[in-house]
Amino acid sequence: MVGMICLRACSGLVGFRTALSLRSLHSFPGITVAQIDEEVAKLLELKARLGGDDGKHQFVLKTAKGTRDYNPKQMAIREKVFNTIISCFKRHGAETIDTPVFELKETLTGKYGEDSKLIYDLKDQGGELLSLRYDLTVPFARYLAMNKITNIKRYHIAKVYRRDNPAMTRGRYREFYQCDFDIAGQYDAMIPDAECLKIVYEILSQLDLGDFRIKVNDRRILDGMFAVCGVPDDKFRTICSTVDKLDKMPWEDVKKEMVNEKGLSEEAADQIGEYVSMQGGMDLAERLLQDQKMSQSKQACAGLSDIKLLFSYLQLFQVTDKVVFDLSLARGLDYYTGIIYEAVLSQAGVAPVSTEAQNGPPGEESVSVGSVAGGGRYDGLVGMFDPKGRKVPCVGVSIGIERIFSIMEQKAEASAEKVRTTEVQVMVASAQKNLLEERLKLVTELWNAGIKAEVMYKKNPKLLSQLQHCEESGIPLVAILGEQELKDGVVKLRVVATREEVDICRADLIEEVRRRTSDAS
Amino acid sequence: MVGMICLRACSGLVGFRTALSLRSLHSFPGITVAQIDEEVAKLLELKARLGGDDGKHQFVLKTAKGTRDYNPKQMAIREKVFNTIISCFKRHGAETIDTPVFELKETLTGKYGEDSKLIYDLKDQGGELLSLRYDLTVPFARYLAMNKITNIKRYHIAKVYRRDNPAMTRGRYREFYQCDFDIAGQYDAMIPDAECLKIVYEILSQLDLGDFRIKVNDRRILDGMFAVCGVPDDKFRTICSTVDKLDKMPWEDVKKEMVNEKGLSEEAADQIGEYVSMQGGMDLAERLLQDQKMSQSKQACAGLSDIKLLFSYLQLFQVTDKVVFDLSLARGLDYYTGIIYEAVLSQAGVAPVSTEAQNGPPGEESVSVGSVAGGGRYDGLVGMFDPKGRKVPCVGVSIGIERIFSIMEQKAEASAEKVRTTEVQVMVASAQKNLLEERLKLVTELWNAGIKAEVMYKKNPKLLSQLQHCEESGIPLVAILGEQELKDGVVKLRVVATREEVDICRADLIEEVRRRTSDAS
Repeated sequence: MVGMICLRACSGLVGFRTALSLRSLHSFPGITVAQIDEEVAKLLELKARLGGDDGKHQFVLKTAKGTRDYNPKQMAIREKVFNTIISCFKRHGAETIDTPVFELKETLTGKYGEDSKLIYDLKDQGGELLSLRYDLTVPFARYLAMNKITNIKRYHIAKVYRRDNPAMTRGRYREFYQCDFDIAGQYDAMIPDAECLKIVYEILSQLDLGDFRIKVNDRRILDGMFAVCGVPDDKFRTICSTVDKLDKMPWEDVKKEMVNEKGLSEEAADQIGEYVSMQGGMDLAERLLQDQKMSQSKQACAGLSDIKLLFSYLQLFQVTDKVVFDLSLARGLDYYTGIIYEAVLSQAGVAPVSTEAQNGPPGEESVSVGSVAGGGRYDGLVGMFDPKGRKVPCVGVSIGIERIFSIMEQKAEASAEKVRTTEVQVMVASAQKNLLEERLKLVTELWNAGIKAEVMYKKNPKLLSQLQHCEESGIPLVAILGEQELKDGVVKLRVVATREEVDICRADLIEEVRRRTSDAS
Repeated sequence: MVGMICLRACSGLVGFRTALSLRSLHSFPGITVAQIDEEVAKLLELKARLGGDDGKHQFVLKTAKGTRDYNPKQMAIREKVFNTIISCFKRHGAETIDTPVFELKETLTGKYGEDSKLIYDLKDQGGELLSLRYDLTVPFARYLAMNKITNIKRYHIAKVYRRDNPAMTRGRYREFYQCDFDIAGQYDAMIPDAECLKIVYEILSQLDLGDFRIKVNDRRILDGMFAVCGVPDDKFRTICSTVDKLDKMPWEDVKKEMVNEKGLSEEAADQIGEYVSMQGGMDLAERLLQDQKMSQSKQACAGLSDIKLLFSYLQLFQVTDKVVFDLSLARGLDYYTGIIYEAVLSQAGVAPVSTEAQNGPPGEESVSVGSVAGGGRYDGLVGMFDPKGRKVPCVGVSIGIERIFSIMEQKAEASAEKVRTTEVQVMVASAQKNLLEERLKLVTELWNAGIKAEVMYKKNPKLLSQLQHCEESGIPLVAILGEQELKDGVVKLRVVATREEVDICRADLIEEVRRRTSDAS
């Protein structure tokens, strides 16, 4: 292979033709974009053949930067996590859809603000300009508008792509899964919103990731708060993104950024600082509705009333022990219009969050290990795709599955229990030589009966190596054939864990394997 | 949204800057590729903002050419098909892996022959040159070499990308699923190969797609046949690709292409014609081993002996009724080195294939509706990635899942049975107003018990519309709450299909729902 690449790369013909064309490029002033495109394509082709920019003819055996393979062990963990999450989505009556991995570039344009620079574009090979999807929410909105769907409860689990600087040790990749649940439709306030939080609660509880809490706020409360604190209208977004840093930076630094970098008055910053230190439950919402300043903002009042209503539903859903109304929560994405939320795991174990206000400033609480779910209401996004601007109100949540994978992998590493990567119930083995045909006959019987079974692909494998394979891959049973067993019409069934062996009448083998592995399949 | 795009597209600034740079391009002879790259990137950016090549500022609401969304109904069918296939793979002890959707461009270079032009490249945005995967086999080989894995039985189900001319009505897309099962490792001849055929047999039988058969041949038999028929060495591949057209073209046309286009002698073509009309089983392999001409080729003899051995294992696996040794089978891909196979569905029902030779020329048999699975042995591919060229023998099969989806969708359309897109067991409904809280309490009890349940997101939905929703989405049960039921501590359980209603003690509801939907979940 290496030789082949060298041969191609050194081919004088390719190099010559490209060089010639490049020269001709300068002699004709009537150059067109199409011609440039063509030349660039030729050069990139040459670069590709050379195996990279450096001109060395080395073949690099790796995955693309920021991406990774999943090995069978990781896939087994991934499957378990997905099963838990999908079961929850299905328990709540969600359908699922799928969309292509790339969209027309214009579909993504203007949806992600500054983050647009992180979008992967496909090469223009003639035809449409395409980009890899950046999240699942924009394709979902495009799907709803395109198919004129006004009501749906759907989940979508798929990979998304961001040309970010990967921090793979912290579980951040350029290709990663998103795991979204959304409810679209014109419904009564806060009922679907509350169900999204119920779902986060169920999933995080069932995955057994340790203690967590779900912070809740509302875009309208944030905007109202900015207004009553004297933030100029055109600075709402930028001040909001500074507030968003409160989970990583102490208040003093956040304030500095507001005042020194963003030109906010010290007084306004201090007022914001007072509000964003507030955490609580329904009572905090009630208190703020009475707050002299806050109550001046219609927007804030609407948000606060909805928070109250939300908490009343959350009580019925029995999830208020983990949910906290937190005025410092300010999720980055532009498209949120109402309730927003984010779930964080606590390293040490978060103090139980009651509906009592917890007014300690951010930073004093136990350290959180980061967000594992987030979402909110986005009532305007679908309308951006509809030719007539018809709105479809939506609320949804995205489970931070990659971080969850990392945690589950670490747990599996730490635990003594071995992760099985197959579900094989029984290995068909032979004790003597020349029994391949008999093994193949028996494994066929088992397969045809729906039993998960394996044979070694050797004519005469040693019994020891067959047993070793079972130990290594956690296969619980071995069906051993020998001359004597064949004569007697039995199979020796060996329990790998205990080394117990028992002769089973051939006709009863399938039932016996089923009985002994009924919880393993 | 439309307005916003227009605004950006008309922005003089962007247009001006690009035009300026383009002009400056011609005045400096010391232009570099990097500069061209940059200019092209700017222009493409502008094109993207303009919303396409045509310069009209229209926002197009569509998916990329050759791609499609899957709606919930299609997803339900897809899930069913995947479950059948994955169960089979797991029954045979396969693990699963996943690889990124894009690879370094050079990883794919030189693997697909002429088809390389169909590879999707990502835009060079600085950094590595990347391409979307074209199949799952090359990433699999790269994975094995990179991780120095010499033994694995794995399946991989994922989307692949080909810039082909889409024929979407015939189920051909630019983004489509592949569904691969492969066995890598140095094993005794034909045992893993036979298991691959067993797997195809099981999957096609279980999916109930109508009659099918699996054609088998061997790359070495084809090459040996070409040699003894007098095809020059350097024409093996091109003649092979002509033979590959026999399933779409009559022999006369194939012969014409060989003689007129590819310059083969008429005599050689006629000899090939005689061989490629042969179909049979183990007996045909035996006969050809005695064939005066064929037996002169060592390669052909090795292939024929393996076909014999393969059929002996297929007999033990009880699948010979659908397998036919067919000398006209010549799969396109370069990397096959041994056994190759392809499964085709028959429209009318193929005549049962016994081990008797069926010598009718291709074209006379009942019409096949195309390949639904294919694969073969590729012992050299992993070595192409290994720096020291170490080989890992592999054999595998790819299930043509998109065509299978199409067939299943057509079957679902034609059938009276409705495809359910959710698995909801019970709808919690109310008969009167002001019972939202009670509904939310009850649905919480059900969710917490693992029951799949729904409520309408309305404060006071009409009973009729709640029942209608159940009819439409196939929800079998309704748990109805009313003032009287609450007073009596019961729930009225309604069976949607029969309209039968029965009062169930609230404490027994969960058990009752489980009992009545035990096969529905």
